[in-house]
Amino acid sequence: MEPLYEGKAKRLYTTDDPNVLRMEYKDEATAFNAEKKAEFENKGRLNTAITLAMYRMLEAKGVETHLLESIDDTNLLVKNVDILMVEVIVRNVAAGSFSKRLGVKEGTPFNQPIVEFSYKSDELGDPLINDDYAREMGLATPEECAELKSKALIINDVMIEFFQHAGLKLVDFKVEFGRTKDADAKIVLADEISPDTCRLWDIETGKKMDKDRFRQDLGGVMEAYEEVLKRVEATVK
Amino acid sequence: MEPLYEGKAKRLYTTDDPNVLRMEYKDEATAFNAEKKAEFENKGRLNTAITLAMYRMLEAKGVETHLLESIDDTNLLVKNVDILMVEVIVRNVAAGSFSKRLGVKEGTPFNQPIVEFSYKSDELGDPLINDDYAREMGLATPEECAELKSKALIINDVMIEFFQHAGLKLVDFKVEFGRTKDADAKIVLADEISPDTCRLWDIETGKKMDKDRFRQDLGGVMEAYEEVLKRVEATVK
Repeated sequence: MEPLYEGKAKRLYTTDDPNVLRMEYKDEATAFNAEKKAEFENKGRLNTAITLAMYRMLEAKGVETHLLESIDDTNLLVKNVDILMVEVIVRNVAAGSFSKRLGVKEGTPFNQPIVEFSYKSDELGDPLINDDYAREMGLATPEECAELKSKALIINDVMIEFFQHAGLKLVDFKVEFGRTKDADAKIVLADEISPDTCRLWDIETGKKMDKDRFRQDLGGVMEAYEEVLKRVEATVK
Repeated sequence: MEPLYEGKAKRLYTTDDPNVLRMEYKDEATAFNAEKKAEFENKGRLNTAITLAMYRMLEAKGVETHLLESIDDTNLLVKNVDILMVEVIVRNVAAGSFSKRLGVKEGTPFNQPIVEFSYKSDELGDPLINDDYAREMGLATPEECAELKSKALIINDVMIEFFQHAGLKLVDFKVEFGRTKDADAKIVLADEISPDTCRLWDIETGKKMDKDRFRQDLGGVMEAYEEVLKRVEATVK
């Protein structure tokens, strides 16, 4: 069966119900806009389980997501939403592209979180944009931009606290949102929440527990993801 | 005499009055973050005259600038302001870095102007930032960001109309602002307004009349600047 859409880390398939899609998490890992690629056994399974636990935790805190139910180790059923072509990044501590572009040392904490948007385009390398860009590119209205920021900051608050209980510092994360196709279309959290999309540092040791282990060739990539899953599952209980 | 500050296109010197600086416009031209360099005889003189005329025109329309008076062909006396390390770019039509980063054809008009900020850093290549970046980098408060946007849009309105009378389409421009050192510190327009900092296309022919002639090796760079000065001077009369 042909996927409806294939991204770098997931495939989306239609189901018998037009309102429902199946989201399959792949073992492939990519970095630097897919210039660096690898396959990690169990990555699909780990990210499925972490996303599922995080979505359920967030739903319990009042954050709506596209999640419907889990099917198996690497597949979730999700609402068929229209994904907004804006990626929303929240940063609590300088790292990654922020540190590189702005010349700020990795690990520098921010006084207040930074929210930024990037244009979801593999071809263009997901360039940073602002609200005016989003408006003129037809990606999101100014009102939607404000809603995305507000939702992202709420998700940040909930996740900072959650990960703190799991002994992890939430450095930054990327989320995507979709518009539901109901009559009263709503913007809900979509895509995934995993060590592929969050920077997580062990609070005690500072050890990187996320995709930077792959980006920076630090080794023990799946061991770190396993550990994140273990702590997430212990924390949601 | 050593300049207080030397930029890519201008030098700033102290004067006998600590509140007053002398701004000298150089003949050097740089592009692509100074990877491309050249010297154009008369550029300093042309940009001084164009900036002077534009500042006086804007002052007459109620836009405050750092201009005090003209000294000679390549020197202006200006208020000693603290330059904000945020460059403000206003775009009416897609071109330059916008077209390149977003994959939008040059010449595509926007419905409403785009305002964007970049971090004034030659070393980092003036990276695009948003309001949250400006706040966390200590470049401008959220209130100052709002003020910069508002001032930039007013300047855009005034300049669009002015250049239209001069037969030129204002595609985009970059401005800088400074805080006056008075007790009641104000944010005023600073730096320059010239074909180095504005994209200007002939309304009739579409011919580029700005630094893109240098960036893109189109030739006739100073002839275009001369023509812009001629039209600006005819329009202010």
